[in-house]
Amino acid sequence: MYYFAGVDVGGTNTKIGILNGEGDILKSVSIKTESIMGVDYTLNKIWETILVLLDELDIDRDVIKGIGMGIPGPVIEQKKVGFFANFPWEQNVNISEKMEKISGVKTRLENDVNVIALGETLYGAGKGFSKSITIALGTGIGGGIFIDGKLISGATGAGGEIGHMKLEKDGKLCGCGQKGCFETYASATGVMRETLSRLQMNKDNSLYKFIEGDLNRLEAKHVFDEAKKGDKFCLDIVDYVSEYLALGIGNVLNIINPEVVILAGGVALAGDILMEGVKEKLPRYALGITIENLEIKIGELGNDAGIKGASALTI
Amino acid sequence: MYYFAGVDVGGTNTKIGILNGEGDILKSVSIKTESIMGVDYTLNKIWETILVLLDELDIDRDVIKGIGMGIPGPVIEQKKVGFFANFPWEQNVNISEKMEKISGVKTRLENDVNVIALGETLYGAGKGFSKSITIALGTGIGGGIFIDGKLISGATGAGGEIGHMKLEKDGKLCGCGQKGCFETYASATGVMRETLSRLQMNKDNSLYKFIEGDLNRLEAKHVFDEAKKGDKFCLDIVDYVSEYLALGIGNVLNIINPEVVILAGGVALAGDILMEGVKEKLPRYALGITIENLEIKIGELGNDAGIKGASALTI
Repeated sequence: MYYFAGVDVGGTNTKIGILNGEGDILKSVSIKTESIMGVDYTLNKIWETILVLLDELDIDRDVIKGIGMGIPGPVIEQKKVGFFANFPWEQNVNISEKMEKISGVKTRLENDVNVIALGETLYGAGKGFSKSITIALGTGIGGGIFIDGKLISGATGAGGEIGHMKLEKDGKLCGCGQKGCFETYASATGVMRETLSRLQMNKDNSLYKFIEGDLNRLEAKHVFDEAKKGDKFCLDIVDYVSEYLALGIGNVLNIINPEVVILAGGVALAGDILMEGVKEKLPRYALGITIENLEIKIGELGNDAGIKGASALTI
Repeated sequence: MYYFAGVDVGGTNTKIGILNGEGDILKSVSIKTESIMGVDYTLNKIWETILVLLDELDIDRDVIKGIGMGIPGPVIEQKKVGFFANFPWEQNVNISEKMEKISGVKTRLENDVNVIALGETLYGAGKGFSKSITIALGTGIGGGIFIDGKLISGATGAGGEIGHMKLEKDGKLCGCGQKGCFETYASATGVMRETLSRLQMNKDNSLYKFIEGDLNRLEAKHVFDEAKKGDKFCLDIVDYVSEYLALGIGNVLNIINPEVVILAGGVALAGDILMEGVKEKLPRYALGITIENLEIKIGELGNDAGIKGASALTI
């Protein structure tokens, strides 16, 4: 029997798991990424952690047949990373080669959202589908497109970067420096921006009471929670966000025409209150033929999607 | 040596060619589609025309190893057609099966824009690239996405329908019944709409003189022609169109991240005057990483792209 290591490299923490060929996590652990210590330090630390996990599981290191890694940045040909978002590591590093030198084990990489998409498609909400789009609604918006067994990674690792699709010409300013990006409207940050903006002229709502007038305490989750309790102010914001979610998803449906859309990340946890709006508004933006048999599902793997998907890169 | 038939089924005319395995057209002819006579009539007529061409080329019918067809409608699994745009043929017909029964030759189908994309990628402007997007800028806008040897056809045949990506929320009304679609701004029809609208309040321009004040005579081509001569009114429209072209192409780049974008169709013939604007405006909409090494090219095969791409479906 063979085993695989799945590694989900994050800005602060890196999750590492040992999995079997069916994507079951036998054991996992989270370590500090400490990117400031340099790429070699972090990769060595990851490999040492894999060895510790193997030891604890009483698995021989020879039966580890692959290491898969999810990386916060554009990945080229599952080996090189164009650049690391927020890491002080050099550009175009061949992480695969480095890790193979350290470990002696075949190593493949993908963008972090792409591995979530792979995990959800193979082992989670997308199981049984051959054409899926996974949309991670978190601080930003990322996407992973899976078609007939393969991720659309793109020529320079930017495949699936749907968060920067423009939904408004000259719209809200985005962190990328451009304007009107999908993620400025429908990410957790997008929810916060709209809420803070509206709170400037409306303080008579249960959200404002909940945060006791302290804007620093505001989280996107609070908006959904108060909306669920019936607060009109928050319901209006949920309506606004679901409109842009429908617009963004609709555009992607017209281009990719998948069988299933999987929504992951913190904002997706809002659940029905957001989804109902999206489903109702989608027919205004997506061609009828793309939604006839479409399923829209919430991700099922939560934080495990990354290591599960990563492990599948080398299977 | 084996040969292939490429068929490009259009609303009025159907182009039929006999090609070798390298995509060279040995002989081709255009016949009336006469869809009104029914699907069986048209398919039989296509097969009879193939036989005539073979006869003229002195090629034995046994060495025809495949028939590929480009179809104006969504194609599912290269066999069934969801519906025919403007044809009085029933929905979900298995054209592949019907044609194989008539001809005894393996038959595969794809959407008409997808076969143009396949033709341009394999034999035209996209030769040598493995990730391309072909955008057909005609009466409407269609797209064909080619990734590592395969077209993205979608779950229900709507893959690549980028013409209905929304560029303006609640924008111009589209023929599809929705609003703000890419093709309402940047197709030949889009150019005409904007021009007719502006001519209502500005008649002091060389375009108006050219059409002698008869709005019925207006064609999109005239706008580009007069712009090339320096007419300010037309240059402003070209600027407007190139802005939306850049926005639409930028969005697709962020999602697919191809190596090359191939522009085909009548509007693409405007050439430099349109392309310069698009290239200049693209960095406002596409992520930097998607345009670093990107090539934007004009299609090279013209009207032959369809039969060349169609023939490749069975190779």
